[in-house]
Amino acid sequence: MRNVITLTTDFGLKDYYVSAMKAVMLGIAPEVRLIDVSHDIPSQDIMAGSWVLKNSAMLFPSKTVHAVVVDPGVGTERHPIALKVEDQFFVGPDNGIFSLLTASREYTAVRLTREQYLRDSPSSTFHGRDIFAPAAAHLSRGVPLEELGEPLDELVSYRWMQPIADKDGVQGAVIHIDKFGNLVTNIPEDLIHEVIGNQKVKIYVGNVILNDISTTFGDVTEGEPVAYIGSAGMLEVGINKGNAEEMLGVQKGAQISLVLQK
Amino acid sequence: MRNVITLTTDFGLKDYYVSAMKAVMLGIAPEVRLIDVSHDIPSQDIMAGSWVLKNSAMLFPSKTVHAVVVDPGVGTERHPIALKVEDQFFVGPDNGIFSLLTASREYTAVRLTREQYLRDSPSSTFHGRDIFAPAAAHLSRGVPLEELGEPLDELVSYRWMQPIADKDGVQGAVIHIDKFGNLVTNIPEDLIHEVIGNQKVKIYVGNVILNDISTTFGDVTEGEPVAYIGSAGMLEVGINKGNAEEMLGVQKGAQISLVLQK
Amino acid sequence: MRNVITLTTDFGLKDYYVSAMKAVMLGIAPEVRLIDVSHDIPSQDIMAGSWVLKNSAMLFPSKTVHAVVVDPGVGTERHPIALKVEDQFFVGPDNGIFSLLTASREYTAVRLTREQYLRDSPSSTFHGRDIFAPAAAHLSRGVPLEELGEPLDELVSYRWMQPIADKDGVQGAVIHIDKFGNLVTNIPEDLIHEVIGNQKVKIYVGNVILNDISTTFGDVTEGEPVAYIGSAGMLEVGINKGNAEEMLGVQKGAQISLVLQK
Repeated sequence: MRNVITLTTDFGLKDYYVSAMKAVMLGIAPEVRLIDVSHDIPSQDIMAGSWVLKNSAMLFPSKTVHAVVVDPGVGTERHPIALKVEDQFFVGPDNGIFSLLTASREYTAVRLTREQYLRDSPSSTFHGRDIFAPAAAHLSRGVPLEELGEPLDELVSYRWMQPIADKDGVQGAVIHIDKFGNLVTNIPEDLIHEVIGNQKVKIYVGNVILNDISTTFGDVTEGEPVAYIGSAGMLEVGINKGNAEEMLGVQKGAQISLVLQK
Repeated sequence: MRNVITLTTDFGLKDYYVSAMKAVMLGIAPEVRLIDVSHDIPSQDIMAGSWVLKNSAMLFPSKTVHAVVVDPGVGTERHPIALKVEDQFFVGPDNGIFSLLTASREYTAVRLTREQYLRDSPSSTFHGRDIFAPAAAHLSRGVPLEELGEPLDELVSYRWMQPIADKDGVQGAVIHIDKFGNLVTNIPEDLIHEVIGNQKVKIYVGNVILNDISTTFGDVTEGEPVAYIGSAGMLEVGINKGNAEEMLGVQKGAQISLVLQK
Repeated sequence: MRNVITLTTDFGLKDYYVSAMKAVMLGIAPEVRLIDVSHDIPSQDIMAGSWVLKNSAMLFPSKTVHAVVVDPGVGTERHPIALKVEDQFFVGPDNGIFSLLTASREYTAVRLTREQYLRDSPSSTFHGRDIFAPAAAHLSRGVPLEELGEPLDELVSYRWMQPIADKDGVQGAVIHIDKFGNLVTNIPEDLIHEVIGNQKVKIYVGNVILNDISTTFGDVTEGEPVAYIGSAGMLEVGINKGNAEEMLGVQKGAQISLVLQK
């Protein structure tokens, strides 16, 4: 029995969209527990949704079913799919939303083509209610993945831009800015260990230069910027009790440079 | 046993209002499952709340109890009520919030007058915690509707303005704009079939003219406006991967005209 | 068995932070019910979080576990703690967030130092996932508070500024503005009864003067300001079907004066 379904959408909560999905799920799987992951993914921002999945979905208990609807292409030819990644199940559009999750993991995927597992006469504009909610609910009741439709070998997938490492250091970019204004970069901890190690480095980002990579906010005084390895395992830049996005004047996509001091 | 209570409010989440309601519900009905429908109904916007109910409440499993608190008149003479609509239960203020739900359905209603089903010394300003939460919790435990108070024959009710159909076409209005900027109109699918059928039509809304009613976003290229029957069964206007509210300069209440081309 | 965990954070929902906490909790306590209290506490606003706790936490069923993460000092020397207040359990940072709750109540507290009840290698920046979520989940499974770490005698605590009462009346301040723009003051009902009683009073706040303390919104006509005892037991100022913050031009911290008319 897979008795938890999580919901991750960009639907917000002022409309009936989330409510209708929950209603359909409970109608099919009355005992399921619904866990809201987020309905505040920025509208149609596939990579923002993928980032949330990457950093939390695999932490859920075995056999959790994740319904993920960030779906700018609803009503176009993109496929509705379900997949199994390790011990977790997912349903959502095949539009790249699972990219960061499947980049380094095995998965099995199907297209959601079996009508008996969808709502009757699915609409063209609300697959969350008519396709993804029922598919997630059937999965949660134990219907095998393969039952839901035709196998699909390859998913649409996107990647963050990759950081560039050379003898001078590392060039990366800000890929996400969190609610507190912390700047998350595409530079993973591993790469820093490999390229920088114990050498001295200067970090250029926005309008400031930082002189080292610290462990945490408390390593600098209040109001000062600090670079550290964040909870997602990537280099981040924040301000102790402040907002780096605002104070450093940095936006998503901005460049960050780690320059070795020789 | 009715073991699901949904919550629909305009309380937002920065205050203790939702939390207090949930606490009171769990105190009375410890086994109940609480499902958040929305706490982001625009402040005091009764019809926005009614729209969410209309499009999702009846999809929930039989005997679900819906606690609905969009209540600009709290502390005035409006009545707190409970009602049964088909197999669903509702509690909330008698201020029109149930209008769209009861417009075409039979219902039984009572005023919440029995003190043993309310909190002691209910406040004048927070009926969500003191009246609606306990009433919903008691309903979820199986207390019969009639137990909660005196029968009420007629509810306060509001209607959307009605579209006007004549030999030239249909005149309607934008009654809701969703989170993605899609414009939802008061023109139902049925009326379009009846008045327009297979005839050619031009659609005037905001600063654009559309030449037909499509099935879905994918029928136009990205960035183009499109008219389609939305998931609520009403004519909508959206932009493929864009925001119609912003791009067409349209607000709630704006006029939309379907003009037959003869 | 303590089978409800509530979550109160300033994390918002566009990031993976709340999701990761829920995943860790369910991993340790698969049967627990998760209740969202709020993820919209204003960023790093400890007293706003404390206000929500004060007005709702103690209403939850006995043995509820409350995970509270408003934590501007994560990664500094502030302690992660757990405490028991009457029949409720809490985990969170020792930064004053529990101040309003413990001001007038007995409590037992421990520092979260036992590694077996934390995630392996806790990060320095995300104690919500690595320390507070597992501690809450273990508490919910029945692990005794004392098991989680070393006793702590005194918590960091803050107080609202106190109102000043003298022969001329009461001077107070606006300590919270709710989602509807109602102004909540630091003047409790008790103090009003004691100092004002049945005497006539004028209330000065923002750009208006009110002539008495009413019971509820309905005591004034629509659009008019009204002073009343709110659902938290404090003097509040609102507008019948309007927004006092906007219409009276008042911000948090503003002064409010009750002047006796002799």
